[in-house]
Amino acid sequence: MSHDLREIAVYAPASVSNFGPGFDCFGLALERPGDTVSARLADVPGVRVESIEGLCDGIPLDSDRNTASVAAAAVWSSVEDPPAPGLILRIHKGVPPGSGLGSSGASAAAGAAVAGHLYQELTSRSIDDRVIFEAALDGEAVAAGTRHADNVAPSLFGDFVIVRRGEPTQFARFHPKLECWIAVVKPDISISTREAREVLPETVPLSDAVTNWSNSATLVLGLLQGDAELVKESLHDSIVEPRRAKLIPGFDDAREAALGAGALACGVSGSGPTLFALATEESVAKAAARSITKVFRVGGLDSWIEVSPISPLGARRV
Amino acid sequence: MSHDLREIAVYAPASVSNFGPGFDCFGLALERPGDTVSARLADVPGVRVESIEGLCDGIPLDSDRNTASVAAAAVWSSVEDPPAPGLILRIHKGVPPGSGLGSSGASAAAGAAVAGHLYQELTSRSIDDRVIFEAALDGEAVAAGTRHADNVAPSLFGDFVIVRRGEPTQFARFHPKLECWIAVVKPDISISTREAREVLPETVPLSDAVTNWSNSATLVLGLLQGDAELVKESLHDSIVEPRRAKLIPGFDDAREAALGAGALACGVSGSGPTLFALATEESVAKAAARSITKVFRVGGLDSWIEVSPISPLGARRV
Repeated sequence: MSHDLREIAVYAPASVSNFGPGFDCFGLALERPGDTVSARLADVPGVRVESIEGLCDGIPLDSDRNTASVAAAAVWSSVEDPPAPGLILRIHKGVPPGSGLGSSGASAAAGAAVAGHLYQELTSRSIDDRVIFEAALDGEAVAAGTRHADNVAPSLFGDFVIVRRGEPTQFARFHPKLECWIAVVKPDISISTREAREVLPETVPLSDAVTNWSNSATLVLGLLQGDAELVKESLHDSIVEPRRAKLIPGFDDAREAALGAGALACGVSGSGPTLFALATEESVAKAAARSITKVFRVGGLDSWIEVSPISPLGARRV
Repeated sequence: MSHDLREIAVYAPASVSNFGPGFDCFGLALERPGDTVSARLADVPGVRVESIEGLCDGIPLDSDRNTASVAAAAVWSSVEDPPAPGLILRIHKGVPPGSGLGSSGASAAAGAAVAGHLYQELTSRSIDDRVIFEAALDGEAVAAGTRHADNVAPSLFGDFVIVRRGEPTQFARFHPKLECWIAVVKPDISISTREAREVLPETVPLSDAVTNWSNSATLVLGLLQGDAELVKESLHDSIVEPRRAKLIPGFDDAREAALGAGALACGVSGSGPTLFALATEESVAKAAARSITKVFRVGGLDSWIEVSPISPLGARRV
């Protein structure tokens, strides 16, 4: 059996986390962009990253620091009798790193999933989703410092995810009844994770916290019931987003422009600098993306944009 | 036409507010207990409370301080051409005052609704729900000091309510897919509103706040999808409830006993001292109520109990 010729590929989508009032717990899978990780068996132990292409600026080839290889290695070390001692990965990055679109999480999800698919195909044994999920969290941790699931879970399983607190990490997942088109616009600036974390408050006024849990609850209700007006009223965050928005020049104008174009809501994706806008029609989402881009253009910033629905699929064979 | 002989009656149910992670925004209508307010026309201007019966300890007859009469008067003063200058009310209190079961809100809801029904029946004109709701909030305000809707909205409209922040007060309402039986157990102690308010923190750690908005979101998801396990995991509050629970001797043991009897969750209703327990079967809710009662009994406290489903109906003619 010529293991080394066999290669399979998995695509895992980007994700928008936080999403208004759901700081550190909401996340949703986009259809596009996404990362693709290909894997084949190797006779040498360990997981090696052979190549990284696409939007790969700053992504480490070092297999101990690459989220895809760490995730794949975690799967490989937790299965019984792997069909070969090691794996060789090729990575195509479609998710811009440092964008707030869960770039590291998408690679981690794809890395864990591709190792799982390869194992299952070659051994005809199944692997529990939990093993893949925990491996992807291991991968995320080497980039993010923590085993945050708000990007990994939607990248891996799709749909809208609510991460629960506690160990082991649990989450609930649902597909909105409301038709949701998400525009994501990344202005050409960088925000470091440290910067994004430093602006977080340690404590929040009880009254603001109540507003956020009320909005979190009605946002989920509106998405599940297909109530666009309720979603629009609920998709606000007065606690974290205003602080992170200050790191994005032109945010307020960009948000106004998106709403003016008919978007239900507009906010910061993850820790930024990407903005998301939500609409119930593709054409409106595209118009919102163009409007945001124009505002950044006036400020001298180019933008990268993508428009896609919420994806019911997470990591999948391609 | 002999106006003064005509009397109609409206029943408005009690409600459980806060309900775990939803401090100051969640509320649900019980089927029982409830308040009944009867109204008939009077040739004298104003709304007069003729009698209060039932669990009426401490409820003012003074029509400027009684929530039912203030609410009825607010309706009467906002409609065009009322069929008589005034109203006479008779009140039957089924909701124990000072229990944390929205006693003042139930009376306010019944008072507003009965005035509305009487007007509509005699004039054949309709009144917008918003007028009745605002009038009931006016009534609530004379007892609670604020126009809180988390009891008034479920008492008036039924089901599970999520109150939104801002003016005018808005709320979203849904009927859980999960079959919900609620046991309410009031130990024979009093907690003043002042005491219950004084234990509230002004600020909360961001991390605790995230837990609450994650739980608020998954609680609504679980109720809507009929997922008892998710509801059980989500029905917690680490911010307000622990502080209020300290005002209720034996709370921790009572809660343990309810969970031991099979309840999905047990917590403080409103500002207490009533405990609620949630179960998906009537027999389990009753067993939980008995278990809680036993714990209070050991502590030397008698209890008042009621078990009912979440009511899809709010204030209604009887």
